[in-house]
Amino acid sequence: MTRGMLLCCATLAAGGLHPSGQAPDAPASSPPPMTTASVLGGTKPSDWRPLDPENTLYVELPGGRVVIELAPAFAPAHVANVKALVREGFFDGLTINRAQDNYVVQWGDSNAEDAQKRRPIRKAKPTLPAEFDRSIAADLPFAPLADGDVYAPEVGWSAGFPAARDPKSGRTWLAHCYGTLGAGRGNDAASGGGTELFVVIGHSPRHLDRNDTAFGRVVRGIEVLSTLPRGTGALGFYENAEQRVPIRSMRVAADVPAAERVALEVLRTDTEAFGSLIEARRNRREEWFKQRVGKVELCNVPIPVRPAATGSR
Amino acid sequence: MTRGMLLCCATLAAGGLHPSGQAPDAPASSPPPMTTASVLGGTKPSDWRPLDPENTLYVELPGGRVVIELAPAFAPAHVANVKALVREGFFDGLTINRAQDNYVVQWGDSNAEDAQKRRPIRKAKPTLPAEFDRSIAADLPFAPLADGDVYAPEVGWSAGFPAARDPKSGRTWLAHCYGTLGAGRGNDAASGGGTELFVVIGHSPRHLDRNDTAFGRVVRGIEVLSTLPRGTGALGFYENAEQRVPIRSMRVAADVPAAERVALEVLRTDTEAFGSLIEARRNRREEWFKQRVGKVELCNVPIPVRPAATGSR
Repeated sequence: MTRGMLLCCATLAAGGLHPSGQAPDAPASSPPPMTTASVLGGTKPSDWRPLDPENTLYVELPGGRVVIELAPAFAPAHVANVKALVREGFFDGLTINRAQDNYVVQWGDSNAEDAQKRRPIRKAKPTLPAEFDRSIAADLPFAPLADGDVYAPEVGWSAGFPAARDPKSGRTWLAHCYGTLGAGRGNDAASGGGTELFVVIGHSPRHLDRNDTAFGRVVRGIEVLSTLPRGTGALGFYENAEQRVPIRSMRVAADVPAAERVALEVLRTDTEAFGSLIEARRNRREEWFKQRVGKVELCNVPIPVRPAATGSR
Repeated sequence: MTRGMLLCCATLAAGGLHPSGQAPDAPASSPPPMTTASVLGGTKPSDWRPLDPENTLYVELPGGRVVIELAPAFAPAHVANVKALVREGFFDGLTINRAQDNYVVQWGDSNAEDAQKRRPIRKAKPTLPAEFDRSIAADLPFAPLADGDVYAPEVGWSAGFPAARDPKSGRTWLAHCYGTLGAGRGNDAASGGGTELFVVIGHSPRHLDRNDTAFGRVVRGIEVLSTLPRGTGALGFYENAEQRVPIRSMRVAADVPAAERVALEVLRTDTEAFGSLIEARRNRREEWFKQRVGKVELCNVPIPVRPAATGSR
């Protein structure tokens, strides 16, 4: 009984799924019903895109590697600056300082407020103007989700990331879903810039949309972050220095020898296959499900990631 | 800089909050702006209700105690049966068998499928008809949230729990938010009943609404569950027996000596104070926030829990 309970996969690694999953009551003459497994099993190689090593970060922690895809289409200055910080070794040996349950894990310089002890920044910028949102533009694809949203007039996917937009204002922004990477900041909107980073590890805090610069998402290894002991201080900060988790290194994947890279590819969000996946999530046809809801929320649609077919990257 | 970043509190223990939080730009003549902290600081004792020890469960794990409030208004048979299971010691010495990232932690009898080894059930029932939803009724309060919802025609709070309803069908049900307790089951809707329990530890899987019997929520100690190592098997099951986490005991709080109980109280959801809290979450007035969204999603409104003023329970 145990293993049959709660068939489902909110987080899914396509490689681990079985290529079946058809509902047993499907008439023989009709096309097979769409399930997550059947949609992924039917994808073509061209439905997938490799991660761009120049926009991929590896965070090496005692618990393993976290792989982050950056979103230069939404926050080009933050992406450039965090890469500059990574390349000057800014994060190496710093710590994860905060783990707030159902919210975020955050890392950076625990001495940032101490002018004597803080880590110097060499070429990168200490702060940047906010990139909370950007203009809707013809060269930024947007695959809409028709099912509605509490927080934004329109939601969907742009360049592989969950996004929202407001046609009236002409602005678009990344949505804070589980796994989203953001730039911590102080009360001044321009006080962030990438020296403090956080990742969402709980129910999607969509009230952060346009309140901080979101500029990437974890595509592998989020469990290394989500299982960290929660901090017992205010806002989930660790109260004692020894509770902080050391960052062995942060690297841009392009700087990592090929043999040490992890080769991943992501389902393109502008494909028919992704449209089928949305439908498979909207109306779950796995035998376990008894209700077909007919709707799905933006952050409940997984963006599948799998090991690349060839180890080229 | 570090500590000032990301002022916020998706999970909040009211005891830890400061009773201030007014926006600094408020004109002196206007009433103070509503923030989570100011709303909680202004509550009256009667805005809070103690947990009913007869509908409170303690799950004792190596990492600490998890406190669960049961929802008999929504699933009376499941509540009665899980209490019967607890009282005959069914769960004591069983294990947590599954931890799927961004989804659920699940516990029960890892030998449930083995007729020789499975734990016998004495007085409780091994399975129950589903209690996925119930009738809307005059004696079941419902405080609506006007901000809309992707999954249901109406959402709000009933008897202290996030809930949804459909006036057309006359049905109402608990929403699967972070921390929701549900009964695992097999493919047959009537194959659950409380011998397998799960708690949501990720983005709210609202597609489970009306697909399983939700019948409670974690009110304290969810971090004991959410930080468990994730299982590496299909659906997050632990692949080796030694990875499973032992359940020292499960007890109904009423059966626990008073000195060993944890005295908690919950903000009533049918109060003016809770309405103010919703408004404080809809338009965040803490200085850190730059956007006032004007909307809030059901599962993003915390239901505050605090140590009881007196240690009476």
